[in-house]
Amino acid sequence: MTDDEGVLAGHLQELRRGTVVVAALASLRTPGYGYALLESLARNGFEVDANTLYPLLRRLEKQGLLTAEWNTEESRPRKFYRTSPAGEQVLAALRADWRSLDASISDLA
Amino acid sequence: MTDDEGVLAGHLQELRRGTVVVAALASLRTPGYGYALLESLARNGFEVDANTLYPLLRRLEKQGLLTAEWNTEESRPRKFYRTSPAGEQVLAALRADWRSLDASISDLA
Repeated sequence: MTDDEGVLAGHLQELRRGTVVVAALASLRTPGYGYALLESLARNGFEVDANTLYPLLRRLEKQGLLTAEWNTEESRPRKFYRTSPAGEQVLAALRADWRSLDASISDLA
Repeated sequence: MTDDEGVLAGHLQELRRGTVVVAALASLRTPGYGYALLESLARNGFEVDANTLYPLLRRLEKQGLLTAEWNTEESRPRKFYRTSPAGEQVLAALRADWRSLDASISDLA
């Protein structure tokens, strides 16, 4: 990566960072596993790797925005995530803020 | 601030962070001072304080995305910023990415 590419990559990453939270909270209203979420986010245009997503899911769980249950029916137990009512509220607030930011960006010269 | 408000505030801040770069690069195609930019960003819906904006402007200058000149005509010299050709390119890439993120967010359930 050249310096210029590094500069652009850093700014792009900063622009994308908060959107993964929006995408995770919206997607997990249909409960799911981390791995399935990783795949569906990629399909839907949110570039995030496992090393970023898994700690984020644990952070959102700790904040009470996701609930988690262990599924022990399979040979290897897996955590099953779901957006909580508090998560729904935060999601609604983030989406409202996103729309307002989008309007501000569209208004720029 | 309650814990819940703190959680929401953190996620909102993360969502907004990258947009200030977009707003600064777009606004400074009309050259201006940091203080004037701070006021115009606030008027246009980008909440940012001086302690965040001034270091950001120095960072963008160091990255070659803004050029800066000292105006020494007044009693107190002030730095006059302008978006560089490299800054225009980064701005265009960030705006394209924003549009794509906006489409992805709109497509979420």
